[in-house]
Amino acid sequence: MSDSTLKSRQVVLARYIHGHPSPEDFRTETIDIPAPGDGQLRVRTLYASVDPGALARLGGEASYVPPMALGDVMASAVVGEVVDSRHEQFSPGDLVVGSWGWCEVAVVGPKGLRKVEPGPEPLSAELGVFGIPGLTSYFSILELGKPRAGETVLVSSAAGAVGSVAGQIAKLQGARVVGIAGGPAKCAWVRELGFDEVLDYRAEKDLTAAIQRTCPEGVGVYLDNVGGAMLDAALLNMALRGRVVLSGLITEYGVPPEQRHGLKHTPRFITHRLRMEGFVVFDYADRFREARAALSRWVSEGKVKYREHVAEGLESAPSAFAGVFRGENLGRMLVRVGSPSRTPRAPS
Amino acid sequence: MSDSTLKSRQVVLARYIHGHPSPEDFRTETIDIPAPGDGQLRVRTLYASVDPGALARLGGEASYVPPMALGDVMASAVVGEVVDSRHEQFSPGDLVVGSWGWCEVAVVGPKGLRKVEPGPEPLSAELGVFGIPGLTSYFSILELGKPRAGETVLVSSAAGAVGSVAGQIAKLQGARVVGIAGGPAKCAWVRELGFDEVLDYRAEKDLTAAIQRTCPEGVGVYLDNVGGAMLDAALLNMALRGRVVLSGLITEYGVPPEQRHGLKHTPRFITHRLRMEGFVVFDYADRFREARAALSRWVSEGKVKYREHVAEGLESAPSAFAGVFRGENLGRMLVRVGSPSRTPRAPS
Repeated sequence: MSDSTLKSRQVVLARYIHGHPSPEDFRTETIDIPAPGDGQLRVRTLYASVDPGALARLGGEASYVPPMALGDVMASAVVGEVVDSRHEQFSPGDLVVGSWGWCEVAVVGPKGLRKVEPGPEPLSAELGVFGIPGLTSYFSILELGKPRAGETVLVSSAAGAVGSVAGQIAKLQGARVVGIAGGPAKCAWVRELGFDEVLDYRAEKDLTAAIQRTCPEGVGVYLDNVGGAMLDAALLNMALRGRVVLSGLITEYGVPPEQRHGLKHTPRFITHRLRMEGFVVFDYADRFREARAALSRWVSEGKVKYREHVAEGLESAPSAFAGVFRGENLGRMLVRVGSPSRTPRAPS
Repeated sequence: MSDSTLKSRQVVLARYIHGHPSPEDFRTETIDIPAPGDGQLRVRTLYASVDPGALARLGGEASYVPPMALGDVMASAVVGEVVDSRHEQFSPGDLVVGSWGWCEVAVVGPKGLRKVEPGPEPLSAELGVFGIPGLTSYFSILELGKPRAGETVLVSSAAGAVGSVAGQIAKLQGARVVGIAGGPAKCAWVRELGFDEVLDYRAEKDLTAAIQRTCPEGVGVYLDNVGGAMLDAALLNMALRGRVVLSGLITEYGVPPEQRHGLKHTPRFITHRLRMEGFVVFDYADRFREARAALSRWVSEGKVKYREHVAEGLESAPSAFAGVFRGENLGRMLVRVGSPSRTPRAPS
């Protein structure tokens, strides 16, 4: 255990973001991180998530979580290693998942920390298929969408961390699954995952017609991570009593209301008895253990596949974040900040 | 029983309607109505409903009911008296509710007919508080909105046939009820009905601020009959886990999608876990009897009040229909087409 301070680089919000993010919206600083106080521990970051949903907090306005202030360390899920601990349940070398954000070293309390054991999957999967994206896929499909066997499930951002897993879970329920993704590489991968149809939105002139073509019996469940014109086109193709689950709205974060597409097809809600619901995974926190067990089993059985796009070094996080909004990642976007020390666990 | 033909005036659709209707969209014709065939009956219309929701069928496009064709008799609920009958369950003088539309005399089959007995309320109430509007109020509030005691229920078109009754039913559930209506006369009446607050949208510059002022704890249930900018303003004021029930969208019927307001505040669905559902009363047809019994009890106990705006003569129906879209009616808009003969019922 070290009593000395440790240098840490951290990425902070340099200006509020309206519209798509760019690397210049962030600033990298180096600060001293003191030894942990009583009941605290000091952690070294191994992987940090690059989460498009975070944009909802970066415009200076309230969201379902409080907005970030200028100078705040960029929020993200992280997996790290305990450096030194003054909390009896944690020891140096322990691997933990938390949310201390885009920095190399942090002092944290035990709240919100979860110990993880090295398993057959890479540690980074704790931020992807076993992390918030995987849990979002699980509960949004099984608790809100609830597809019946044979129903068509349409998934936007189908090559993303949420959509790719959500589509596979819907397949496991016996649904017919159609994905929307951008570009041939993503579409090819989504097909590999076992989706019944994939629609390349960049290659389609008329999204409404393309959804109709690939979902001829109507969409029973639309899991949306996009919003805007894509959501509007889906509304025109919903089946009677279809369910729209809004899990993310990447085209609308940081866009002032008057510049948004605006849903025009609200009459469809009445004609087709549609239901649209917003989804926040943290509402299901008391069932995360159950969901992780199911996801872990499906992954080990080869029934759920995933990919990660790992950018190297904390300094690459801002451009990785901007890249997500240009659709550059296939699967979960992550940043590798450090490597495990692989030292044997020391007793506390 | 008469074997001769009867002259009947009828109002038919003269041109498809895009935008607000005008009297010139209809044409009045006189035709001969033959004696009823085997199993049929001939009815004389007493009251016909003037239903804004019918506009959804008048643009030539499919809706939740098939579109009307040019030359079709304008669809409406009607209450009438049997003139002559070749069906064993109906006798001359019987009072029946049906949907034969805007005409003086019609030959109909027994399907969809419901016999009514004269009661303490006027016969016209069968088309209002005991008809589709009252049933819509009942099921939309009790089955989709489900307000809890103390929750705020916001109702648009609060002086309309649906909104006025829906608000009173929500009050009976212990909710705090806020109405939106246009102009001082309507607002005064909505207050009389026991709504806790009434908001005159014509007098408000900023609808979002006005809803916030009258619903300071957020809207738990929004029953909407309007759509467009009013729905968007309500979205910004929904409470956590609020429910939006779309029972009508009067600002959007007959308006091409590209000219509609377009909902901009979809991110609220996620931040506030909102649910929005479309409602069609006919989905609850097997429970109409239960609902009518409850409405009848509430009316007789003075717990639910209603008003009707009765226009005189079939020829006034087209201008009454146009008037609904200018907000001219207070409560249910109806047309009196004829008077009951008051002859004693003859045995069949």
